[in-house]
Amino acid sequence: MTEEKTQENRKSIGVFDSGVGGLTVFRELMNCLPMERLIYFGDTARVPYGSKSRETVTRYSRQIVRFLRTRDVKAIVVACNTASAMALDEIEEEASLPCIGVVKPGARAAAAATGNNKIGVIGTEATIHSGIYERFISEIAPEAEIFGKACPLFVPLAEEGLWEDPVTEEIARRYLSDLLDTGIDTLIMGCTHYPLLKKTIGRVLGEEVTLVNPAFETARALKEELSGRGLINDEPIRMNENAFTFFVSDEADKFRHFANSILPLGILGARKVDIERY
Amino acid sequence: MTEEKTQENRKSIGVFDSGVGGLTVFRELMNCLPMERLIYFGDTARVPYGSKSRETVTRYSRQIVRFLRTRDVKAIVVACNTASAMALDEIEEEASLPCIGVVKPGARAAAAATGNNKIGVIGTEATIHSGIYERFISEIAPEAEIFGKACPLFVPLAEEGLWEDPVTEEIARRYLSDLLDTGIDTLIMGCTHYPLLKKTIGRVLGEEVTLVNPAFETARALKEELSGRGLINDEPIRMNENAFTFFVSDEADKFRHFANSILPLGILGARKVDIERY
Repeated sequence: MTEEKTQENRKSIGVFDSGVGGLTVFRELMNCLPMERLIYFGDTARVPYGSKSRETVTRYSRQIVRFLRTRDVKAIVVACNTASAMALDEIEEEASLPCIGVVKPGARAAAAATGNNKIGVIGTEATIHSGIYERFISEIAPEAEIFGKACPLFVPLAEEGLWEDPVTEEIARRYLSDLLDTGIDTLIMGCTHYPLLKKTIGRVLGEEVTLVNPAFETARALKEELSGRGLINDEPIRMNENAFTFFVSDEADKFRHFANSILPLGILGARKVDIERY
Repeated sequence: MTEEKTQENRKSIGVFDSGVGGLTVFRELMNCLPMERLIYFGDTARVPYGSKSRETVTRYSRQIVRFLRTRDVKAIVVACNTASAMALDEIEEEASLPCIGVVKPGARAAAAATGNNKIGVIGTEATIHSGIYERFISEIAPEAEIFGKACPLFVPLAEEGLWEDPVTEEIARRYLSDLLDTGIDTLIMGCTHYPLLKKTIGRVLGEEVTLVNPAFETARALKEELSGRGLINDEPIRMNENAFTFFVSDEADKFRHFANSILPLGILGARKVDIERY
């Protein structure tokens, strides 16, 4: 392998999300690509994207891509469902780099998993309204019926740490009962926070419904993409090097607290970036 | 009264909030000052402020004040507890107009209401951490003990319309049990959404605890302030004039939907403002 190639492979992978939720994607990337350097950007100053317009989400996403490019990344993971749903084309255009959103890998996994062609999707209002999962799934599996449901309380419940709690279970029952009545056999957890509530959601849905975690599928898809391009890093990271860097657009203790509850490492801090300058 | 004076009195009152919650303040202003023109600005593109830093909240608030000044307002109501807690001095400096936040009137009412000098405050993380209610109350009633509690799920529960619901009551029980144990006889609802949950909060606390609604107290305080300065409008608003104007920083249907569930009038729409230009 040429030195130039190695240089390229050593570069980091940029991951961004509207806030802290994308850390579930970061966690899957850590597991699936253990030799890669990862840079996380959480737009904590402007979270949430779910209630914002396509125009705003696109503008924010472009700014973040411009910031990540200053860190010389080799690929970008759009860990935010809303941004993946609303702005992936514009992100690719801005990046001129391999970009992967969480929507397509999740859609592909659901189409492969369903036996009766009835697939449920849960997410924020914006993700559900955008109809992006329907669009992707119908390209792969035109015969599939898709049933969407927005679950706005799941994010705050996950952020309060009520991952397994009677209140979360009651809310999940309300949100999911209509979906269950449709006879779905597969459910896409179409919001980065939702895997944290996986056990509760699974209990409400019962064993016959397969849960698809787009975070996990995205990590696998990125590995495939990087392999195909010969961009996987296989040089061990030096002992004294920090392989993971975290940036936020606002200094909130919440980020560190939440990150430490999700990731299997102690995060000391995140650097603040004035993202509106990008 | 001179024509010049009348001109001045005819000007609107500007009200702003990080999003939709300040509409509970708007509602109290409508009741308390029925002849006034009101302009509402909801920063729906950048909501919530509660998890953001003082620096960010101050910058956002200054931009909104500059926008409201272009609408030639005669006074500004900071309907957002976070902005009132973090940035009221800077807002006054930027505005050079009478400005009133929701914190001081709420603190004054609580100090007047308590019999045993034990006052509870509930709000967002930012409001509670800022200690602003303690600071204001201790100036008026140095002997009062203040007990604060952040209740992050109350806002999403209110926005989901679960104003009176077993789930909200269960969450309220968990949030408020420690406060009840302290023996408080007065509780400040220190977040604009919370008055929507007033019945549920009241049921959990029991009849012995007085609930203070800063929205109501702010409307009364503003009326007093405008009276003192001779700025109250007493000319009837023309039949074909729309006395209430709504602006948002992002076009979200959610605003109209939520506004219509709170205000006793049909809101057809809100105009979008590119607030980052101000």
